[in-house]
Amino acid sequence: MLLLHLSDVDEDRWSARLAAKLGGYPIVRRGDQFDPRDVRYIFVWKPLENAFDGLTNLKAVLSLGAGVDALLRHPRLPEGVPIVRFVDEELTQCMTDYVIANVTMHQRCHSRYVADQAARHWTQFYPAPAWDISVGIMGLGELGRDAAEKLRALGFAVRGWSRKARDIEGVETFAGPDSFDAFLAGTDILVNLLPLTPETEGILNRKTFGKLRRDNLNGGPTIINAARGGHQNEDDIVTALTDGTLGAASLDVFQTEPLPEASPLWTAPNCYITPHIAAISNPDSGAAYFARVLLEHEQGKPLPNVIDVDRGY
Amino acid sequence: MLLLHLSDVDEDRWSARLAAKLGGYPIVRRGDQFDPRDVRYIFVWKPLENAFDGLTNLKAVLSLGAGVDALLRHPRLPEGVPIVRFVDEELTQCMTDYVIANVTMHQRCHSRYVADQAARHWTQFYPAPAWDISVGIMGLGELGRDAAEKLRALGFAVRGWSRKARDIEGVETFAGPDSFDAFLAGTDILVNLLPLTPETEGILNRKTFGKLRRDNLNGGPTIINAARGGHQNEDDIVTALTDGTLGAASLDVFQTEPLPEASPLWTAPNCYITPHIAAISNPDSGAAYFARVLLEHEQGKPLPNVIDVDRGY
Repeated sequence: MLLLHLSDVDEDRWSARLAAKLGGYPIVRRGDQFDPRDVRYIFVWKPLENAFDGLTNLKAVLSLGAGVDALLRHPRLPEGVPIVRFVDEELTQCMTDYVIANVTMHQRCHSRYVADQAARHWTQFYPAPAWDISVGIMGLGELGRDAAEKLRALGFAVRGWSRKARDIEGVETFAGPDSFDAFLAGTDILVNLLPLTPETEGILNRKTFGKLRRDNLNGGPTIINAARGGHQNEDDIVTALTDGTLGAASLDVFQTEPLPEASPLWTAPNCYITPHIAAISNPDSGAAYFARVLLEHEQGKPLPNVIDVDRGY
Repeated sequence: MLLLHLSDVDEDRWSARLAAKLGGYPIVRRGDQFDPRDVRYIFVWKPLENAFDGLTNLKAVLSLGAGVDALLRHPRLPEGVPIVRFVDEELTQCMTDYVIANVTMHQRCHSRYVADQAARHWTQFYPAPAWDISVGIMGLGELGRDAAEKLRALGFAVRGWSRKARDIEGVETFAGPDSFDAFLAGTDILVNLLPLTPETEGILNRKTFGKLRRDNLNGGPTIINAARGGHQNEDDIVTALTDGTLGAASLDVFQTEPLPEASPLWTAPNCYITPHIAAISNPDSGAAYFARVLLEHEQGKPLPNVIDVDRGY
């Protein structure tokens, strides 16, 4: 039996979606009649103080949040019961899909061939293989790491920059403000996946663009922003695309969303705009994830993404 | 003695690179004074009709192209002399780069967003993650296998179809004409990397397009052809793109190249044209490869990548 205990979110919606994914596996909610000793799994978000009382046969706590710092401070959290956190595989997959599609589009000189096609020109120019193109990823959390690993698998030269030093196999990593210029100097395509903080606000600006490697990627250095509009100076992007400081840009996020009709970004040269659709976190993927975790565990498979309580994440 | 016979490419460049790799092994060119009976190897690209005349002691034909369909139609190709085709890491990498860029472009609904951008429309639509999209690869040789493996690494559902049964981890494979319809019925994006033979000529036709899976890929079933123009019926492609049988096409090869200015493909809906630039054989890696083949054969080792003349590739 699975008990739902979700505060401050739409529990009805989660219940319906989980039921659809769990086949006949029984689900109960707080108001229902049930014996707490039958509860084997509890799915929680902001659990009340009595949430775990009487659940003496609990096999796992499923946590809707990816961060579990609040849950670990719960005064009556049962000891020794594994806690599974939400890793939204679909959000990560979609974000990397967006990054790969846009990196490879620019690598393959898409703008050039679209223009040639419009003019019915047949001019053979051979794009460089992936291994000659360096993709620099800003932000090496769950999303940055996945993008980096898949770009590596495709053969790209990949480098990463983050606040704290990170180790990713086959990726040259840089940490902190002091190494930012060195990171940019070897980057042909700059991908932003940073969190938005006072330190990273406006980081995609003219000064940054001017430090990217020139003359390696045909068309010129390129930026891809799938993080937050607050990371980018949009006047600088328009200017840089117009004067050739940048060869192209793919932007999924904007200072103001929806992007105002009057924005010059809509028609800036080689600027590819999408309406904040790179990736979304959704109850469908959440329900699918937890249903799979539960059913596979019932079949004897180990739980994934279990929290290390001592480490705290 | 090695005879160079390269039309339409920079023979000087190949000659210099081969000389550098062959040590002292003698190389001659068409204009040089030599006894044709001394020629043991001939390195060809688009050989003229008299290319092989008098070469009575030929041990192998080295073919610059990966596809040998044109060479096999040469009217005076010497019988029984093995033909070695070019297997080139850079060519494989570039071909897969092209495939990945075009598959992900269509997966991410590029045509839709370009149209929205031109109209300054902000309409959020979320492309399906890679694992919901099935890419069907026709041809599972060197190129097809590499593309299949990298698409798998990105998370796509990958299936493959070839003349003979092939095993690729994580890829559902189909073999022979009897399984062609089943292969197509589960394919959203069809990638052609087949050799051009009498059996595969014109395989990209209206009947094939009508058997692809509908209603899974937003925009409709999509084809990508990076093999030969002879594989495609261009009238059928234009019709299918216009009436919605196909949602999009990426074409790198054409029945007539350069693509004639009057071709309706230039402006067919969601048709992406590139001028046969998916991949090219690179003189550096090519010279290293053929020099190694020749010198090792002289030392008694068997020739690699020999064409099966009856099979046609």
